[in-house]
Amino acid sequence: MTTPEDAPLLELAGLAAYVRLGLFGLVGAHTLGAPDLEAAHRMMTVAVRVGEQQQKLLAIGAERGVEPVELMRPFLGVLDSFDARTVQSTWWEGLLKGIVGHGVSSDLCRLLARGLPDDDEAAVVGAMTYEADESDRVTSVVRAATDADPRLGSRLALWGRRVVGESLSLCQELLATRPGLAELARRAAAASGGDAPVDAVAWAMSELTAEHTRRMDRMGLAA
Amino acid sequence: MTTPEDAPLLELAGLAAYVRLGLFGLVGAHTLGAPDLEAAHRMMTVAVRVGEQQQKLLAIGAERGVEPVELMRPFLGVLDSFDARTVQSTWWEGLLKGIVGHGVSSDLCRLLARGLPDDDEAAVVGAMTYEADESDRVTSVVRAATDADPRLGSRLALWGRRVVGESLSLCQELLATRPGLAELARRAAAASGGDAPVDAVAWAMSELTAEHTRRMDRMGLAA
Repeated sequence: MTTPEDAPLLELAGLAAYVRLGLFGLVGAHTLGAPDLEAAHRMMTVAVRVGEQQQKLLAIGAERGVEPVELMRPFLGVLDSFDARTVQSTWWEGLLKGIVGHGVSSDLCRLLARGLPDDDEAAVVGAMTYEADESDRVTSVVRAATDADPRLGSRLALWGRRVVGESLSLCQELLATRPGLAELARRAAAASGGDAPVDAVAWAMSELTAEHTRRMDRMGLAA
Repeated sequence: MTTPEDAPLLELAGLAAYVRLGLFGLVGAHTLGAPDLEAAHRMMTVAVRVGEQQQKLLAIGAERGVEPVELMRPFLGVLDSFDARTVQSTWWEGLLKGIVGHGVSSDLCRLLARGLPDDDEAAVVGAMTYEADESDRVTSVVRAATDADPRLGSRLALWGRRVVGESLSLCQELLATRPGLAELARRAAAASGGDAPVDAVAWAMSELTAEHTRRMDRMGLAA
């Protein structure tokens, strides 16, 4: 049974699951048109992991009596404007969009999960856990390509800045309009220590930006 | 270690895995542009199952010392001409292409697996096993749409005939050019009983056509 106390958890799991549905389509489609069989196989492996993560997130809802589609429904369309503003013009741009978008959304969900009771935090973080070598599978495809072609690297660095800008705007919009997520951000920010009162949204944006910079560094791209 | 006796098994597993890579891209991409959230969720669920099947097929190779990409490599490009001749013009045509193509290729692999030693047959068939309700998830999306729109139904029936024609041509081409698969077809046809000598290719085509007709019936489409 759903209780009011579950609302932030369900909102977070629903968001994370819905984002993974969109991401799955993007990464899954990238098995087509991959530069070689290795890259296609890596895309598929990563997409399957994203799918498995989504199933675990949906299970969090199901254990509380919320059907998969109903868990995601409140977020229907939430990526549309992001997608419209980040239409990739090449296979590589689409791939980087997936990496950046997935990275930012996963980081946001992990940050917000810190505002949940410990058991619930563990359930959300556990659902999104990802072997380190899984994400290496994709970033190494980008790294190899940009090492071989520096012009591709500078085009992708520029593109990455656009995608991260849109991703952070979307995060801000979600925190401004979804009460459960906003509450989690306040709790997580308060728990992050320090004596001064913390602006939860500003705190989250700075954490997300720092993680994004590390991720771009790993791909050899200027953030 | 790979032994010469393993060659037909590895050829079959490589074909099945490679076809699933292509299919995964098609079905995964269909989570985007789905008519509603339910349909998108079903596409994703089915794509994840296809991915899991592929991982089991690749494991058959890995247990015999063949890396995933090397298992699939002999089939690289084998779907290109099929794909070029069956370019979908709508989301629904792409979906039906996936259903028909997956159906025919799965049926072919199961047929050919009958020519393997029992243990190997069980490994291949086990890798491709699919809960009946999984395939219902997709066919029911088609059935509901064509029940609601008979014109869509007749367009898709026509499209299905084109896709199955191209699928069967590809099967014939594979049996004509891949010695391991041809050997499995001969053994499977011989084991299928009857006193008269059996033309293995003709036998396989007639089995595949019969299964295709049943599948189209389940979707309410004229085969």
